[in-house]
Amino acid sequence: MVSVSPINVVIVGVGLVGEQVVHQLDLPNLKRIFRIRTLYTSKKKLVVSEDVYTASELISRLKSDQSNEVLGGVEDIVEYVSNSKKLPRPALVIDCTSNQTFADAYPRILSSPGPIHLVTPNKKAFSGPASLNKAIDDACRGTPNLVYKEATVGAGLPIISTLRELVVTGDEILKIEGIFSGTMSYLFNQFSQPGKRTTTRFSEVVAGAKANGYTEPHPGDDLNGSDVARKLCILARNLGSSTTLSLPDGFQSVPTQSLVPSQLVGVDDPTDFMKRLPEFDEQFEKLKNEAFEDGCVLRFVGIVDLTGKAEGEVKAGLEKYPFAHPFATLTGSDNIISFRSKRYSPNPLIVQGSGAGADVTAMGVVGDMVKVAERTLGHNI
Amino acid sequence: MVSVSPINVVIVGVGLVGEQVVHQLDLPNLKRIFRIRTLYTSKKKLVVSEDVYTASELISRLKSDQSNEVLGGVEDIVEYVSNSKKLPRPALVIDCTSNQTFADAYPRILSSPGPIHLVTPNKKAFSGPASLNKAIDDACRGTPNLVYKEATVGAGLPIISTLRELVVTGDEILKIEGIFSGTMSYLFNQFSQPGKRTTTRFSEVVAGAKANGYTEPHPGDDLNGSDVARKLCILARNLGSSTTLSLPDGFQSVPTQSLVPSQLVGVDDPTDFMKRLPEFDEQFEKLKNEAFEDGCVLRFVGIVDLTGKAEGEVKAGLEKYPFAHPFATLTGSDNIISFRSKRYSPNPLIVQGSGAGADVTAMGVVGDMVKVAERTLGHNI
Repeated sequence: MVSVSPINVVIVGVGLVGEQVVHQLDLPNLKRIFRIRTLYTSKKKLVVSEDVYTASELISRLKSDQSNEVLGGVEDIVEYVSNSKKLPRPALVIDCTSNQTFADAYPRILSSPGPIHLVTPNKKAFSGPASLNKAIDDACRGTPNLVYKEATVGAGLPIISTLRELVVTGDEILKIEGIFSGTMSYLFNQFSQPGKRTTTRFSEVVAGAKANGYTEPHPGDDLNGSDVARKLCILARNLGSSTTLSLPDGFQSVPTQSLVPSQLVGVDDPTDFMKRLPEFDEQFEKLKNEAFEDGCVLRFVGIVDLTGKAEGEVKAGLEKYPFAHPFATLTGSDNIISFRSKRYSPNPLIVQGSGAGADVTAMGVVGDMVKVAERTLGHNI
Repeated sequence: MVSVSPINVVIVGVGLVGEQVVHQLDLPNLKRIFRIRTLYTSKKKLVVSEDVYTASELISRLKSDQSNEVLGGVEDIVEYVSNSKKLPRPALVIDCTSNQTFADAYPRILSSPGPIHLVTPNKKAFSGPASLNKAIDDACRGTPNLVYKEATVGAGLPIISTLRELVVTGDEILKIEGIFSGTMSYLFNQFSQPGKRTTTRFSEVVAGAKANGYTEPHPGDDLNGSDVARKLCILARNLGSSTTLSLPDGFQSVPTQSLVPSQLVGVDDPTDFMKRLPEFDEQFEKLKNEAFEDGCVLRFVGIVDLTGKAEGEVKAGLEKYPFAHPFATLTGSDNIISFRSKRYSPNPLIVQGSGAGADVTAMGVVGDMVKVAERTLGHNI
């Protein structure tokens, strides 16, 4: 066994996904490489001074220990991880929050004394203004610091790595098309089924999904399509130089069909929102029936299309797919993403599977951590 | 731009795939990293002494130049790549042959003065006796040498990398099931279609595939299932410690249903073989019709099943799948591989797309080369 100095890990946002990351890191082969130094929730901080621990111990101490340091805010975390005396190098910051302020601080963190790497399922930094994205790239340039974000799209599914491999080996991407939101997948797999006239109203499907915990606390946050727009933005920014596609305002530059009825925009109370949603069932019913008459189902998809206009087109919204199409026969809350390229044409390269949930998202994170470690250590884990 | 010493590349077996590798390496960002030093075909050797060249130049010189060194055999190549004075380090050997003798020499090559890495789509070394596989692992242990073989299964599709990510992050693989052979995919997608009574005889489908260049020169080399058995062996050996699955004789330890009628075993002349194949159409017809009555199609699949017996089961052969199953709706010569695991359950993680052809196989090779380079150089390409 090669003796190596471990990578010092800080996990920010030990919620559902973060806890799973801690648990997955409990494997002996990973424990040899990754030393958890600090855990943050939105309220607490746990500094791990010992080298021998179990995941369960850490989680329970974080949750129960009254003496945990109370968190002073994002600025405190940034200051801590940027200080190589407090957090020894090599360091690896895992951002399991969905926090914009922390994402905004990535360039500062990555400019601190290195090596300091970042792995995150947080979409905010990569789907916001192009300037933030550029600042992150700039901070890493000329340093050994690595940034990985596989879990921002499709959770543990190999989406960003696959796109990157196509691009770096010189393939020409023609079209990326997919069902990127687990919630949207679930809603439309229920609402609009191949060859079958369903009677459940759209608002009932949403209510069922909400009751099962498949939606955000406010279902409007799923229905507005911004999650899909963010993922499209991340993919579009990883197309390499083969496109001049420009999304200066990030996901806000992506034309997105919101399924939140205009009359319900601003209804911030989820209960009020759900109470009024049935008023709009008729229009969803109409769309579904029109699709059915065409032998199609409705799906909420994201599309990056480079075959039309020179600069390409990105959009999120409802589309119709024939009953036998892989998007139509999807079940559960699966994601499906298809890459059509010069090489993968006419048949695309397709990746499909669960694209949400703590365990598969954590897998995307830990998979990225392994990539960082293998690139840093120079041998297989 | 970071200045780096390039990686010295030798490509052995510049045939269809090898030529595509040379062409894909013509990209400026890859040319900065990979310096092609030597090309081998089965008959010729081209030593590239200059640092500036184009892919087309190299290929045409290799093909036309009468002064090319004539190849003295595998032993000469092994001697050359193992000699760090002849092939400067860091070195990267690309084996695009399907040669067993060269594969047998990997341990010697990887034991030569390093760093010397290996990337290959050649299945032979990893699907043969377990002893050769172990010798390769042993040769790399304690060295910086890396071995990547993504293109041995599914060509450019992310199959081995996905399996590895599941395993290394602690997921428990339950079942891997897939259509692994492009030829078998094509044959059965034609022969047995969902919901449609086809009338083309099995031998006619094989003859059509052969005429289109979709089969090996002798179609029996596809129909015997050994290609699938080899791929299953490679996957089974990448399951990590979660299984005690033992395949001491490699692909020959995988129970495989050969579609070569026993009366035609040993008919080495392809023309004779094709002439006699129609005698056996009736039995294929019977299997297809039985499947159809059950609402199913026939597919030639490979299965690694860890849910039954403690040590797991690996097998290749014909199975029936319902008309709506993703394996049934496959088209062309696509591969489809499904991973069911503790996390990806009940719905599996599925990867689908072209699994054969020079360009996508070369992409798998060049993608692996990029991984080797990024792990060696410490920065993104």
